[in-house]
Amino acid sequence: MFGAIEAGGTKFVCAVGNSPDDIIESAVIDTTSPEKTMAQVKQFFQQQFPEPIRAIGLGAFGPICLEKHNENFGSILESPKESWSGFNIYRYLTSNFKVPIHVTTDVNAALLGEFYFGIAKGLHSVVYLTVGTGIGGGAIINNRLISGISHPEFGHMMCKPHPKDIDFKGVCPYHGGHCFEGVASGPAIKARSKKPGYEISEDDELWDIEAYYLAQLTFNLVSTFAPQKVILGGGVMKQSHLFDRIRTHFNLLNKGYTQLDAFNLNVNELVSPVALDGNAGVMGCLYLAKYGFGKLVT
Amino acid sequence: MFGAIEAGGTKFVCAVGNSPDDIIESAVIDTTSPEKTMAQVKQFFQQQFPEPIRAIGLGAFGPICLEKHNENFGSILESPKESWSGFNIYRYLTSNFKVPIHVTTDVNAALLGEFYFGIAKGLHSVVYLTVGTGIGGGAIINNRLISGISHPEFGHMMCKPHPKDIDFKGVCPYHGGHCFEGVASGPAIKARSKKPGYEISEDDELWDIEAYYLAQLTFNLVSTFAPQKVILGGGVMKQSHLFDRIRTHFNLLNKGYTQLDAFNLNVNELVSPVALDGNAGVMGCLYLAKYGFGKLVT
Repeated sequence: MFGAIEAGGTKFVCAVGNSPDDIIESAVIDTTSPEKTMAQVKQFFQQQFPEPIRAIGLGAFGPICLEKHNENFGSILESPKESWSGFNIYRYLTSNFKVPIHVTTDVNAALLGEFYFGIAKGLHSVVYLTVGTGIGGGAIINNRLISGISHPEFGHMMCKPHPKDIDFKGVCPYHGGHCFEGVASGPAIKARSKKPGYEISEDDELWDIEAYYLAQLTFNLVSTFAPQKVILGGGVMKQSHLFDRIRTHFNLLNKGYTQLDAFNLNVNELVSPVALDGNAGVMGCLYLAKYGFGKLVT
Repeated sequence: MFGAIEAGGTKFVCAVGNSPDDIIESAVIDTTSPEKTMAQVKQFFQQQFPEPIRAIGLGAFGPICLEKHNENFGSILESPKESWSGFNIYRYLTSNFKVPIHVTTDVNAALLGEFYFGIAKGLHSVVYLTVGTGIGGGAIINNRLISGISHPEFGHMMCKPHPKDIDFKGVCPYHGGHCFEGVASGPAIKARSKKPGYEISEDDELWDIEAYYLAQLTFNLVSTFAPQKVILGGGVMKQSHLFDRIRTHFNLLNKGYTQLDAFNLNVNELVSPVALDGNAGVMGCLYLAKYGFGKLVT
């Protein structure tokens, strides 16, 4: 039996199963304080499964230190979630469960799910973006998970403002309207229109602005990684009409520079929705629990 | 004896040596037509070194197809250098030299040089940018060379215009002033001021604009790869006063989000000049000739 903890900023999803596609039980726990939330996590695994689990895969919200030899490995860095800043979630788990704990970000966990079991099955180079409360991302290039001294933060790349969006101040607590998270996350949509995305008409001009930014971010990631696919998930992407708009803007921005056809690709395959909505993260965590990083990280 | 071909857009540098730090002879050949240039390359190796070389490392200008199983592997894709578009430089070399040919981009070759013998020796995650006729880039993350279906094109990421540069139309033949190459390459500097960078005073406001763009690109790459170092080389970076300006702008853009201190880094180490100016490319090619990709690419 293996354990999964998808530790998101608003909820934790815990699960146990024999493999990523054989989940036996799961539970959702609110993300409150580290003490309270982690006590519930501990209870889920220890009380419901007295038979020890063999390993745990953890996909945690960030910023989190993932540098192997750093004394802060597994620690949440300075974060707007103040009570979590400095909390070492890896250390908590290793001191409570005497099994291997494999740690990555929540976004990488979802990427792993889609990579091994979802829309990107069989590919070797894939970028994943989640557009919701924030904009997060991860990448597997040539079957390797990308991680330098830390995990990627694609959403904080700088953006070129849409001509009709110049005056919007943005919502990123660090970068205002300078970064993609500041202008294209769920809270940015709400800040402009005073209502959440799912209440905004498909005809609203706001979606063209949104698609322009997400196309720009996709284009930057294609220019950086040359992936076979850029998967877009998260709450905002439930507006499925966005995909064709993003593809149209991508072509307008690219202007033929990245020669997709030379690699037998087209924009419809490149810009892709998720396949495992809601389950990708837990499946990715269970993959990690069962197989570890293996060939994923050098 | 090993062979190196640093195949740049304006000149080819060919060399032979026992190892990257033991170059015996080299020659510079103008980049004209494929037939003419490659005949001179052939002549350099065959006439001057009748004793067969054991392998050749090639670092070629792009866009070039580097997808292993693609029938166009080693072919220059559609490019402003029309006579080279569709020319397969790898096939030319394999049919003329019966030795292993290891192919990468000219920028990756320079990155390899700096990574193994220069400013990045001993590190595991490094990004390299060359700012000259164009803006090119490469990355080694966790000791792996980054390459999806194709090589990186960092210079074509979209940029946020400097407030004093809004009206500049840019010089990128594909993206005008929308991408970094369009606004911060050598030709962009010349298009604004009607003279090359080395004739422009250090006090000129243009350098602040230039530094803003390069800081933005650096910031995007830090947000993407979380490298230990971003090396900036190429003709424009010979203006060494740019480095401190870029560091200042980097801090202004980052606003403390990427917590360098958590990883024992600081902006002075992060934003770095090259160490092997002029030789990095050939050394990288000789490294490839001697050692192949080894652990560099999966």
